[in-house]
Amino acid sequence: MSLNRYSSQLLDEAVEQFASLPGVGRKTALRLALHMLSRDEAGVERFSNAFLNLKGSIHYCPECNMISDDGICPFCSDPRRDHSVICVVESLRDVFSIENTGQYKGLYHILGGIISPMDGIGPGDLPIAELVDRISGGTVREVVLALSTGIEGETTSFYIYKQISSLPVTVTAIARGVGFGDDLEYTDELTLGRSMQNRQPFKP
Amino acid sequence: MSLNRYSSQLLDEAVEQFASLPGVGRKTALRLALHMLSRDEAGVERFSNAFLNLKGSIHYCPECNMISDDGICPFCSDPRRDHSVICVVESLRDVFSIENTGQYKGLYHILGGIISPMDGIGPGDLPIAELVDRISGGTVREVVLALSTGIEGETTSFYIYKQISSLPVTVTAIARGVGFGDDLEYTDELTLGRSMQNRQPFKP
Repeated sequence: MSLNRYSSQLLDEAVEQFASLPGVGRKTALRLALHMLSRDEAGVERFSNAFLNLKGSIHYCPECNMISDDGICPFCSDPRRDHSVICVVESLRDVFSIENTGQYKGLYHILGGIISPMDGIGPGDLPIAELVDRISGGTVREVVLALSTGIEGETTSFYIYKQISSLPVTVTAIARGVGFGDDLEYTDELTLGRSMQNRQPFKP
Repeated sequence: MSLNRYSSQLLDEAVEQFASLPGVGRKTALRLALHMLSRDEAGVERFSNAFLNLKGSIHYCPECNMISDDGICPFCSDPRRDHSVICVVESLRDVFSIENTGQYKGLYHILGGIISPMDGIGPGDLPIAELVDRISGGTVREVVLALSTGIEGETTSFYIYKQISSLPVTVTAIARGVGFGDDLEYTDELTLGRSMQNRQPFKP
Protein backbone atom coordinates (compact mmCIF):
# COMPACT_ATOMS: atom_id res chain seq x y z
CA MET A 1 0.00 0.00 0.00
CA SER A 2 1.51 3.31 -1.01
CA LEU A 3 1.51 6.21 1.41
CA ASN A 4 -0.93 8.72 -0.01
CA ARG A 5 -1.03 12.37 0.92
CA TYR A 6 -2.96 12.11 4.18
CA SER A 7 -2.67 8.36 4.85
CA SER A 8 -6.31 7.89 3.85
CA GLN A 9 -7.94 8.19 0.46
CA LEU A 10 -11.21 9.05 2.20
CA LEU A 11 -9.54 12.01 3.88
CA ASP A 12 -7.75 12.93 0.65
CA GLU A 13 -11.07 13.07 -1.14
CA ALA A 14 -12.69 15.15 1.62
CA VAL A 15 -9.78 17.59 1.54
CA GLU A 16 -9.92 17.76 -2.25
CA GLN A 17 -13.64 18.49 -2.21
CA PHE A 18 -13.27 21.30 0.31
CA ALA A 19 -10.34 22.67 -1.70
CA SER A 20 -12.59 22.71 -4.78
CA LEU A 21 -14.66 25.49 -3.21
CA PRO A 22 -13.79 29.01 -4.35
CA GLY A 23 -11.36 30.73 -1.99
CA VAL A 24 -10.53 27.60 0.02
CA GLY A 25 -6.87 26.55 -0.06
CA ARG A 26 -5.46 23.12 0.78
CA LYS A 27 -4.51 24.09 4.34
CA THR A 28 -7.99 25.34 5.15
CA ALA A 29 -9.48 22.33 3.35
CA LEU A 30 -7.51 19.98 5.61
CA ARG A 31 -8.66 21.89 8.68
CA LEU A 32 -12.28 21.66 7.52
CA ALA A 33 -12.02 17.96 6.65
CA LEU A 34 -10.60 17.17 10.09
CA HIS A 35 -13.38 19.24 11.60
CA MET A 36 -15.92 17.10 9.71
CA LEU A 37 -14.21 13.99 11.05
CA SER A 38 -14.70 15.25 14.59
CA ARG A 39 -18.44 15.79 14.09
CA ASP A 40 -20.97 13.12 14.98
CA GLU A 41 -22.56 11.13 12.19
CA ALA A 42 -25.88 13.02 12.28
CA GLY A 43 -24.02 16.31 11.95
CA VAL A 44 -22.11 15.13 8.89
CA GLU A 45 -25.29 13.76 7.32
CA ARG A 46 -27.09 17.02 7.87
CA PHE A 47 -24.15 18.88 6.32
CA SER A 48 -23.96 16.69 3.22
CA ASN A 49 -27.70 16.42 2.73
CA ALA A 50 -28.09 20.20 2.73
CA PHE A 51 -26.32 20.38 -0.64
CA LEU A 52 -27.89 17.25 -2.11
CA ASN A 53 -31.34 18.60 -1.20
CA LEU A 54 -30.50 22.08 -2.46
CA LYS A 55 -29.39 20.77 -5.83
CA GLY A 56 -32.02 18.04 -6.09
CA SER A 57 -35.13 19.89 -4.97
CA ILE A 58 -34.68 23.57 -5.75
CA HIS A 59 -37.20 25.21 -8.05
CA TYR A 60 -36.97 28.43 -10.01
CA CYS A 61 -39.84 30.90 -9.96
CA PRO A 62 -41.60 30.84 -13.36
CA GLU A 63 -42.13 34.61 -13.06
CA CYS A 64 -38.76 36.04 -12.02
CA ASN A 65 -36.31 33.06 -11.99
CA MET A 66 -35.68 33.51 -8.28
CA ILE A 67 -34.90 30.25 -6.50
CA SER A 68 -37.88 28.90 -4.67
CA ASP A 69 -38.78 25.78 -2.70
CA ASP A 70 -41.92 25.31 -4.83
CA GLY A 71 -43.73 27.22 -7.57
CA ILE A 72 -43.98 31.00 -7.41
CA CYS A 73 -41.21 32.52 -5.25
CA PRO A 74 -41.82 34.35 -1.96
CA PHE A 75 -41.21 37.71 -3.67
CA CYS A 76 -43.71 37.28 -6.49
CA SER A 77 -46.32 35.77 -4.16
CA ASP A 78 -45.97 38.45 -1.47
CA PRO A 79 -48.93 40.90 -1.66
CA ARG A 80 -47.02 43.38 0.54
CA ARG A 81 -44.40 43.93 -2.16
CA ASP A 82 -44.94 46.51 -4.89
CA HIS A 83 -45.94 44.53 -7.98
CA SER A 84 -45.75 47.61 -10.20
CA VAL A 85 -41.94 47.78 -10.13
CA ILE A 86 -39.54 45.17 -11.52
CA CYS A 87 -35.80 45.38 -10.92
CA VAL A 88 -33.70 43.57 -13.55
CA VAL A 89 -30.54 41.99 -12.13
CA GLU A 90 -27.93 39.59 -13.39
CA SER A 91 -27.93 37.09 -10.54
CA LEU A 92 -29.41 35.84 -7.30
CA ARG A 93 -26.60 37.47 -5.35
CA ASP A 94 -27.61 40.88 -6.66
CA VAL A 95 -31.10 40.28 -5.26
CA PHE A 96 -29.65 39.53 -1.82
CA SER A 97 -27.44 42.63 -2.01
CA ILE A 98 -30.38 44.87 -2.89
CA GLU A 99 -32.59 43.23 -0.24
CA ASN A 100 -29.91 43.95 2.35
CA THR A 101 -30.27 47.69 1.75
CA GLY A 102 -33.95 47.56 2.71
CA GLN A 103 -34.54 50.31 0.13
CA TYR A 104 -36.49 48.34 -2.45
CA LYS A 105 -39.90 46.72 -2.08
CA GLY A 106 -40.71 45.79 -5.69
CA LEU A 107 -40.21 42.56 -7.59
CA TYR A 108 -37.18 41.24 -9.45
CA HIS A 109 -36.31 39.72 -12.79
CA ILE A 110 -33.17 37.60 -12.70
CA LEU A 111 -31.45 37.22 -16.05
CA GLY A 112 -28.99 34.59 -14.89
CA GLY A 113 -26.30 36.20 -17.03
CA ILE A 114 -25.62 39.10 -19.38
CA ILE A 115 -25.08 39.33 -23.12
CA SER A 116 -21.52 38.17 -23.74
CA PRO A 117 -20.40 37.24 -27.25
CA MET A 118 -17.10 35.99 -25.78
CA ASP A 119 -18.97 33.39 -23.69
CA GLY A 120 -21.45 32.72 -26.47
CA ILE A 121 -24.37 34.26 -24.57
CA GLY A 122 -26.72 36.12 -26.90
CA PRO A 123 -29.95 38.01 -26.10
CA GLY A 124 -31.93 34.85 -26.95
CA ASP A 125 -30.24 32.98 -24.09
CA LEU A 126 -31.58 35.40 -21.49
CA PRO A 127 -35.21 35.53 -20.29
CA ILE A 128 -35.87 38.91 -21.87
CA ALA A 129 -38.99 37.80 -23.77
CA GLU A 130 -40.34 36.70 -20.38
CA LEU A 131 -39.70 40.19 -19.03
CA VAL A 132 -41.64 41.68 -21.95
CA ASP A 133 -44.47 39.24 -21.17
CA ARG A 134 -44.54 40.30 -17.52
CA ILE A 135 -44.72 43.96 -18.52
CA SER A 136 -47.45 43.27 -21.07
CA GLY A 137 -49.62 42.06 -18.19
CA GLY A 138 -50.33 45.75 -17.49
CA THR A 139 -49.55 45.92 -13.76
CA VAL A 140 -45.95 46.99 -14.20
CA ARG A 141 -45.30 50.74 -14.15
CA GLU A 142 -41.51 50.88 -13.81
CA VAL A 143 -38.53 48.69 -14.76
CA VAL A 144 -35.29 49.41 -12.88
CA LEU A 145 -32.15 48.24 -14.66
CA ALA A 146 -29.51 47.19 -12.12
CA LEU A 147 -26.97 45.41 -14.31
CA SER A 148 -23.24 45.84 -13.94
CA THR A 149 -21.45 48.63 -15.75
CA GLY A 150 -18.86 47.57 -18.29
CA ILE A 151 -19.48 46.82 -21.94
CA GLU A 152 -21.47 43.62 -21.47
CA GLY A 153 -23.75 45.02 -18.78
CA GLU A 154 -24.34 48.24 -20.77
CA THR A 155 -25.06 46.23 -23.93
CA THR A 156 -27.59 44.12 -22.06
CA SER A 157 -29.22 47.18 -20.48
CA PHE A 158 -29.43 48.84 -23.89
CA TYR A 159 -30.89 45.72 -25.51
CA ILE A 160 -33.55 45.44 -22.81
CA TYR A 161 -34.33 49.13 -23.11
CA LYS A 162 -34.90 48.72 -26.87
CA GLN A 163 -37.25 45.79 -26.24
CA ILE A 164 -39.42 47.52 -23.66
CA SER A 165 -39.19 51.24 -24.45
CA SER A 166 -42.29 51.06 -26.65
CA LEU A 167 -44.33 49.59 -23.80
CA PRO A 168 -46.18 51.86 -21.36
CA VAL A 169 -43.54 51.58 -18.68
CA THR A 170 -40.88 53.90 -17.21
CA VAL A 171 -37.35 52.52 -17.58
CA THR A 172 -34.90 53.66 -14.91
CA ALA A 173 -31.39 52.63 -13.88
CA ILE A 174 -29.80 52.59 -10.45
CA ALA A 175 -27.71 55.69 -9.74
CA ARG A 176 -23.96 55.53 -10.27
CA GLY A 177 -21.75 57.92 -8.39
CA VAL A 178 -19.06 58.42 -5.80
CA GLY A 179 -19.58 55.87 -3.01
CA PHE A 180 -20.24 56.97 0.56
CA GLY A 181 -16.93 57.53 2.33
CA ASP A 182 -14.96 57.57 -0.93
CA ASP A 183 -12.49 60.39 -1.61
CA LEU A 184 -13.04 62.39 -4.79
CA GLU A 185 -9.29 62.27 -5.31
CA TYR A 186 -9.30 58.47 -5.64
CA THR A 187 -12.53 58.12 -7.63
CA ASP A 188 -12.11 57.24 -11.32
CA GLU A 189 -13.07 60.07 -13.65
CA LEU A 190 -15.92 58.14 -15.31
CA THR A 191 -17.67 57.65 -11.97
CA LEU A 192 -16.95 61.20 -10.81
CA GLY A 193 -18.11 62.61 -14.16
CA ARG A 194 -21.35 60.63 -13.98
CA SER A 195 -21.77 61.73 -10.39
CA MET A 196 -21.48 65.36 -11.45
CA GLN A 197 -23.93 64.93 -14.35
CA ASN A 198 -26.51 63.32 -12.08
CA ARG A 199 -26.22 65.87 -9.26
CA GLN A 200 -29.25 66.09 -7.03
CA PRO A 201 -30.90 68.89 -5.04
CA PHE A 202 -29.03 69.10 -1.73
CA LYS A 203 -31.19 67.94 1.19
CA PRO A 204 -29.67 69.09 4.48
CA MET B 1 -45.81 31.69 3.13
CA SER B 2 -43.44 33.85 5.12
CA LEU B 3 -40.42 35.37 3.44
CA ASN B 4 -37.45 33.53 4.87
CA ARG B 5 -33.91 34.79 4.80
CA TYR B 6 -32.97 33.74 1.28
CA SER B 7 -36.43 33.02 -0.18
CA SER B 8 -35.72 29.29 0.02
CA GLN B 9 -35.41 27.05 3.05
CA LEU B 10 -33.18 24.74 1.03
CA LEU B 11 -30.76 27.59 0.42
CA ASP B 12 -31.09 28.75 4.04
CA GLU B 13 -30.09 25.29 5.22
CA ALA B 14 -27.14 25.10 2.80
CA VAL B 15 -25.93 28.52 3.97
CA GLU B 16 -26.37 27.51 7.60
CA GLN B 17 -24.39 24.32 7.09
CA PHE B 18 -21.49 26.14 5.42
CA ALA B 19 -21.61 28.78 8.17
CA SER B 20 -21.32 25.98 10.75
CA LEU B 21 -17.76 25.31 9.56
CA PRO B 22 -15.02 26.92 11.65
CA GLY B 23 -13.88 30.24 10.21
CA VAL B 24 -16.72 30.54 7.70
CA GLY B 25 -18.98 33.57 8.15
CA ARG B 26 -22.49 34.01 6.74
CA LYS B 27 -21.34 36.05 3.75
CA THR B 28 -18.82 33.42 2.68
CA ALA B 29 -21.38 30.70 3.42
CA LEU B 30 -23.85 32.33 1.04
CA ARG B 31 -21.18 32.61 -1.64
CA LEU B 32 -20.30 28.92 -1.22
CA ALA B 33 -23.96 27.82 -1.23
CA LEU B 34 -24.62 29.73 -4.47
CA HIS B 35 -21.48 28.15 -5.89
CA MET B 36 -22.87 24.70 -5.04
CA LEU B 37 -26.12 25.65 -6.76
CA SER B 38 -24.18 26.43 -9.94
CA ARG B 39 -22.43 23.03 -9.97
CA ASP B 40 -23.85 20.11 -11.88
CA GLU B 41 -25.59 17.34 -9.96
CA ALA B 42 -22.67 14.91 -10.16
CA GLY B 43 -20.35 17.56 -8.74
CA VAL B 44 -22.64 18.19 -5.78
CA GLU B 45 -23.04 14.46 -5.16
CA ARG B 46 -19.29 13.95 -5.18
CA PHE B 47 -18.89 16.85 -2.76
CA SER B 48 -21.51 15.61 -0.31
CA ASN B 49 -20.51 11.97 -0.54
CA ALA B 50 -16.90 12.78 0.32
CA PHE B 51 -17.93 13.65 3.88
CA LEU B 52 -20.52 10.89 4.26
CA ASN B 53 -17.90 8.35 3.15
CA LEU B 54 -15.22 9.90 5.32
CA LYS B 55 -17.39 9.70 8.41
CA GLY B 56 -19.04 6.38 7.56
CA SER B 57 -16.05 4.35 6.42
CA ILE B 58 -12.97 5.72 8.14
CA HIS B 59 -11.00 3.36 10.36
CA TYR B 60 -8.50 4.11 13.09
CA CYS B 61 -5.20 2.24 13.20
CA PRO B 62 -5.28 -0.18 16.17
CA GLU B 63 -1.58 0.56 16.74
CA CYS B 64 -1.26 4.35 16.63
CA ASN B 65 -4.85 5.69 16.23
CA MET B 66 -3.97 7.27 12.90
CA ILE B 67 -6.89 7.40 10.50
CA SER B 68 -6.76 4.67 7.93
CA ASP B 69 -8.97 3.34 5.14
CA ASP B 70 -8.69 -0.18 6.55
CA GLY B 71 -6.79 -1.93 9.36
CA ILE B 72 -3.20 -0.96 10.14
CA CYS B 73 -2.39 2.56 8.90
CA PRO B 74 0.11 3.32 6.12
CA PHE B 75 2.66 4.53 8.69
CA CYS B 76 2.63 1.43 10.89
CA SER B 77 2.59 -0.90 7.87
CA ASP B 78 5.43 0.85 6.02
CA PRO B 79 8.67 -1.18 6.35
CA ARG B 80 10.69 1.85 5.18
CA ARG B 81 9.78 3.83 8.29
CA ASP B 82 11.83 3.50 11.47
CA HIS B 83 9.79 1.26 13.77
CA SER B 84 12.16 1.86 16.68
CA VAL B 85 10.98 5.45 17.27
CA ILE B 86 7.49 6.55 18.31
CA CYS B 87 6.49 10.20 18.38
CA VAL B 88 3.61 10.98 20.76
CA VAL B 89 1.31 13.74 19.49
CA GLU B 90 -2.03 15.12 20.50
CA SER B 91 -3.81 15.03 17.15
CA LEU B 92 -3.84 14.01 13.52
CA ARG B 93 -2.97 17.56 12.48
CA ASP B 94 0.28 17.37 14.44
CA VAL B 95 1.21 14.28 12.40
CA PHE B 96 0.64 16.17 9.15
CA SER B 97 2.66 19.13 10.44
CA ILE B 98 5.60 16.89 11.39
CA GLU B 99 5.36 14.96 8.10
CA ASN B 100 5.54 18.25 6.22
CA THR B 101 8.98 18.92 7.66
CA GLY B 102 10.33 15.71 6.12
CA GLN B 103 12.60 15.41 9.20
CA TYR B 104 10.99 12.41 10.88
CA LYS B 105 10.77 8.87 9.60
CA GLY B 106 9.56 7.00 12.68
CA LEU B 107 6.06 6.03 13.80
CA TYR B 108 3.45 8.01 15.72
CA HIS B 109 1.15 7.56 18.67
CA ILE B 110 -1.89 9.83 18.53
CA LEU B 111 -3.46 10.53 21.91
CA GLY B 112 -6.53 12.28 20.52
CA GLY B 113 -6.40 14.75 23.40
CA ILE B 114 -4.38 15.76 26.45
CA ILE B 115 -5.05 15.48 30.16
CA SER B 116 -7.47 18.27 31.00
CA PRO B 117 -9.37 18.22 34.30
CA MET B 118 -11.39 21.22 33.07
CA ASP B 119 -12.75 19.19 30.15
CA GLY B 120 -13.02 16.02 32.26
CA ILE B 121 -10.23 14.24 30.38
CA GLY B 122 -8.12 12.10 32.71
CA PRO B 123 -5.11 9.88 31.93
CA GLY B 124 -7.47 6.90 31.64
CA ASP B 125 -9.27 8.53 28.70
CA LEU B 126 -6.09 8.63 26.63
CA PRO B 127 -4.47 5.58 24.95
CA ILE B 128 -1.43 5.65 27.22
CA ALA B 129 -1.70 1.98 28.26
CA GLU B 130 -1.61 1.18 24.53
CA LEU B 131 1.62 3.15 24.22
CA VAL B 132 3.11 1.14 27.09
CA ASP B 133 2.01 -2.04 25.28
CA ARG B 134 3.69 -0.94 22.06
CA ILE B 135 6.92 -0.22 23.90
CA SER B 136 6.78 -3.54 25.73
CA GLY B 137 6.97 -5.26 22.36
CA GLY B 138 10.73 -4.62 22.49
CA THR B 139 11.28 -2.99 19.08
CA VAL B 140 10.93 0.57 20.33
CA ARG B 141 14.13 2.33 21.33
CA GLU B 142 13.00 5.96 21.62
CA VAL B 143 9.78 7.82 22.45
CA VAL B 144 9.66 11.47 21.32
CA LEU B 145 7.16 13.61 23.22
CA ALA B 146 5.74 16.30 20.93
CA LEU B 147 2.81 17.59 22.96
CA SER B 148 1.96 21.27 23.29
CA THR B 149 3.57 23.36 26.00
CA GLY B 150 1.21 24.85 28.55
CA ILE B 151 0.08 23.23 31.76
CA GLU B 152 -2.07 20.49 30.20
CA GLY B 153 0.51 19.43 27.64
CA GLU B 154 3.29 19.41 30.25
CA THR B 155 1.14 17.42 32.65
CA THR B 156 0.42 14.85 29.97
CA SER B 157 4.09 14.64 28.97
CA PHE B 158 5.06 14.18 32.61
CA TYR B 159 2.41 11.51 33.16
CA ILE B 160 3.56 9.57 30.09
CA TYR B 161 7.18 9.91 31.20
CA LYS B 162 6.32 8.41 34.59
CA GLN B 163 4.55 5.47 32.90
CA ILE B 164 7.38 4.59 30.53
CA SER B 165 10.57 5.76 32.27
CA SER B 166 11.09 2.36 33.84
CA LEU B 167 10.99 0.65 30.43
CA PRO B 168 14.19 0.18 28.36
CA VAL B 169 13.46 3.19 26.16
CA THR B 170 14.92 6.69 25.73
CA VAL B 171 12.36 9.43 26.28
CA THR B 172 13.04 12.67 24.38
CA ALA B 173 11.06 15.82 23.66
CA ILE B 174 11.11 18.07 20.63
CA ALA B 175 13.35 21.13 21.06
CA ARG B 176 11.79 24.42 22.10
CA GLY B 177 13.55 27.65 21.22
CA VAL B 178 13.54 30.84 19.23
CA GLY B 179 11.91 30.23 15.86
CA PHE B 180 13.80 30.77 12.62
CA GLY B 181 13.49 34.39 11.55
CA ASP B 182 12.21 35.48 14.99
CA ASP B 183 13.80 38.49 16.71
CA LEU B 184 15.24 37.87 20.16
CA GLU B 185 13.70 41.18 21.20
CA TYR B 186 10.17 39.92 20.59
CA THR B 187 10.62 36.37 21.89
CA ASP B 188 8.99 35.66 25.25
CA GLU B 189 11.49 35.09 28.06
CA LEU B 190 10.43 31.50 28.73
CA THR B 191 11.23 30.50 25.15
CA LEU B 192 14.43 32.52 25.03
CA GLY B 193 15.50 31.14 28.43
CA ARG B 194 14.87 27.56 27.27
CA SER B 195 16.71 28.34 24.05
CA MET B 196 19.72 29.51 26.02
CA GLN B 197 19.67 26.46 28.31
CA ASN B 198 19.53 24.09 25.35
CA ARG B 199 22.29 25.81 23.36
CA GLN B 200 24.01 23.59 20.83
CA PRO B 201 27.52 23.39 19.39
CA PHE B 202 27.67 25.93 16.54
CA LYS B 203 27.88 24.25 13.12
CA PRO B 204 29.04 26.73 10.50
